[in-house]
Amino acid sequence: MRMYDIIMKKRNGGELTEQEIQFFIEGYTKGEIPDYQVSALMMAIYFQKMTETETAALTMAMAHSGDMLDLSEIQGCKVDKHSTGGVGDKTSLALTPMVAACGIPVAKMSGRGLGHTGGTIDKLESFAGFNVALSREKFIENVNKIGIAIMGQTADLAPADKKLYALRDVTATVDNMSLIASSIMSKKLAAGADAIVLDVKTGSGAFMKTQEDAEALAQEMVKIGNHAGRKTIAVVSDMDQPLGFTVGNALEVKEAIDTLKGQGPADFTALCLELGSQMLVAGGAARDAVIAKTMLQQVIADGSALDKLAQFVGAQGGNPDWVYHTEQLPMAEHIVDVLAPVEGYVQKITCDEVGICSLMLGGGRETKESEIDLSVGLVLKKKVGDYVQKGDTLAQLHINDLSRQDAVTKRLLKAYIIGEAQPKSSQLIKCIIS
Amino acid sequence: MRMYDIIMKKRNGGELTEQEIQFFIEGYTKGEIPDYQVSALMMAIYFQKMTETETAALTMAMAHSGDMLDLSEIQGCKVDKHSTGGVGDKTSLALTPMVAACGIPVAKMSGRGLGHTGGTIDKLESFAGFNVALSREKFIENVNKIGIAIMGQTADLAPADKKLYALRDVTATVDNMSLIASSIMSKKLAAGADAIVLDVKTGSGAFMKTQEDAEALAQEMVKIGNHAGRKTIAVVSDMDQPLGFTVGNALEVKEAIDTLKGQGPADFTALCLELGSQMLVAGGAARDAVIAKTMLQQVIADGSALDKLAQFVGAQGGNPDWVYHTEQLPMAEHIVDVLAPVEGYVQKITCDEVGICSLMLGGGRETKESEIDLSVGLVLKKKVGDYVQKGDTLAQLHINDLSRQDAVTKRLLKAYIIGEAQPKSSQLIKCIIS
Repeated sequence: MRMYDIIMKKRNGGELTEQEIQFFIEGYTKGEIPDYQVSALMMAIYFQKMTETETAALTMAMAHSGDMLDLSEIQGCKVDKHSTGGVGDKTSLALTPMVAACGIPVAKMSGRGLGHTGGTIDKLESFAGFNVALSREKFIENVNKIGIAIMGQTADLAPADKKLYALRDVTATVDNMSLIASSIMSKKLAAGADAIVLDVKTGSGAFMKTQEDAEALAQEMVKIGNHAGRKTIAVVSDMDQPLGFTVGNALEVKEAIDTLKGQGPADFTALCLELGSQMLVAGGAARDAVIAKTMLQQVIADGSALDKLAQFVGAQGGNPDWVYHTEQLPMAEHIVDVLAPVEGYVQKITCDEVGICSLMLGGGRETKESEIDLSVGLVLKKKVGDYVQKGDTLAQLHINDLSRQDAVTKRLLKAYIIGEAQPKSSQLIKCIIS
Repeated sequence: MRMYDIIMKKRNGGELTEQEIQFFIEGYTKGEIPDYQVSALMMAIYFQKMTETETAALTMAMAHSGDMLDLSEIQGCKVDKHSTGGVGDKTSLALTPMVAACGIPVAKMSGRGLGHTGGTIDKLESFAGFNVALSREKFIENVNKIGIAIMGQTADLAPADKKLYALRDVTATVDNMSLIASSIMSKKLAAGADAIVLDVKTGSGAFMKTQEDAEALAQEMVKIGNHAGRKTIAVVSDMDQPLGFTVGNALEVKEAIDTLKGQGPADFTALCLELGSQMLVAGGAARDAVIAKTMLQQVIADGSALDKLAQFVGAQGGNPDWVYHTEQLPMAEHIVDVLAPVEGYVQKITCDEVGICSLMLGGGRETKESEIDLSVGLVLKKKVGDYVQKGDTLAQLHINDLSRQDAVTKRLLKAYIIGEAQPKSSQLIKCIIS
């Protein structure tokens, strides 16, 4: 078998066999097939697309290119959750204690943030001493004992995907539905859960700008998951403005805790309940979504979800007391108001621009090596649909380095589009695909 | 300017600017732009094509990526000739003395053969002592004094093309008309001639298997040449069977000499006259092709073309006497007949298979490092349209290593398709594009 023939076949519109896909993924992972042949193949795939069978084969080949986690020592049906990423997306922080409190074990690998989107691990490190470098044994022991453990991606999960994504990123071959879907799903399949709930974001802050594209991606991923024998459900949700009010690590932790107390933002709470109920159903803890939602509301009302978060933080080296006293979380030195320059309706908040404002304040990473400031970020006071008077506070910057204030303020004001007409309200949950 | 944006623009069907094309060719030549980005761009070009303006810009950028030869010290209008390559194509050997004898100076860079096609330089080295490593001064002096000089490609002509071609060759991005045309023309433009006559081959032994493709390539190249201010004419000619009767280095030299004596094969002689007359017209030595053809027939008839070859061989270190006594050229130890296994018309000779037979005898290079045997090759006794009896000699192998006889014979017999129906005769000269 020769890589040349595989490129030629795909270029000419042929369907690659499982063997051909395995050959190229194995060869590329081992460094036997060079980047320049793979990038040519990726561009050919961009133009010729991949069939459902090819996409499934590519996903499996990438999943098997590294470690396949074995979570069989954990009792119960393990349900993983994945978000395609957005701004202010602190879902895992609130959602995992909620479902764990309902009896679904959460054994999760999480990543750090890069660019304008944050990462769960960074946010958790707002608890001083929090340790994500668990041994495999400790990880499994914690899940069995308290129901949750989250660790950094120490295992060599889907290295082929990592290598391939880095290549696609510099060769303009990222935006193909099959390649995006297989990239996400290869890591999820390798991570070992029995069922997977996907949160596919759509809107200005999401990778998928249109609902149509988000639904297509959701469908691709659900097909792959089911093909691999894992129950997979996708929720398509709005990311046309930041989720909740806060953007920034410690600020988002606090908002997640508020949500576990029943005092969270309406949109964020609703999303947690929707994703959580799908997880409970997928994991067999509830018969249907209505019952599941009631169970989740109960663990919020009786405080057991909040207690679960505290247990989890304590088990991984943080101080559980901070969950009940959030004023101990890192706080920025200054809080600066950003004022509305005109009167009118907030018609749009360009979502990834808000993420970039947080990055500029020091809350995100420009490169993998950047240090981040956990205390800084933004608290939005007005969101899409709100009416503001000139001089009203649109948002507050939580800032340490005041020299950045002007640039961030300017950028944030550009992200807020204010006008006379009242904007149509957009649905938070677009659809559910299973 | 970023290579990523250039790939994305072409992928999305945009037209690249001259600046963008220069940026990528310069960056790639210097090694600042990596192979994997360039191969992705090549695949995008394969799908999205290039406009005439883009193709011209790419050709000029590649031509200027290395040395641009200055032939202004040579008096007269320099006319270069290029063949897209075939089997038994010894055209340069006979053609250049013919046109030089008619007063058109020939200052030519030539290459060595690779795979199943031969190279002019290898063939010339059949004259013991022949030296292709001329200094620039000696090269120009020889042209001014005797009208011909041929040297190996010592100058750094179009290095971008060399690098790009090698990459396309392993990424299934060779067969795009604009890329093929710009590859050939970049070297021709850098080689400094005032006018260019192109011999574009079509048929089973050619890169362009169909006449339609060959004509499209011819048209692309003529446009590029004229765009660059060089008078360019393309002749589309048949390569569905080997040209002439001989394939192999010294054997082809002998056939070229026979042609200069007026005793060459009809097809080969006709092609030389056609290409030669276009060169004389392009170089201003004849008013039209009819007059030009008469002039060429004259220099054959009066022996001056043959004398010109002898002068040229002598000036570059060979023994001019061998031109008149070809039995001194390298000769193989054995001549072995290959007999017709059945009676019928020769309907087809799979052209590149004959080239591979010569390669197997030792007459060609499998890799750039291979040593070649100048004496071996094939002499075809029957060509397409000939009627053969069972047992007639189809061809003769000129062979040194008899252990290869069986394999070569078997392969050659497969290349000869013999059947009852008389094949349609195919035209040698398909069309002329200027």
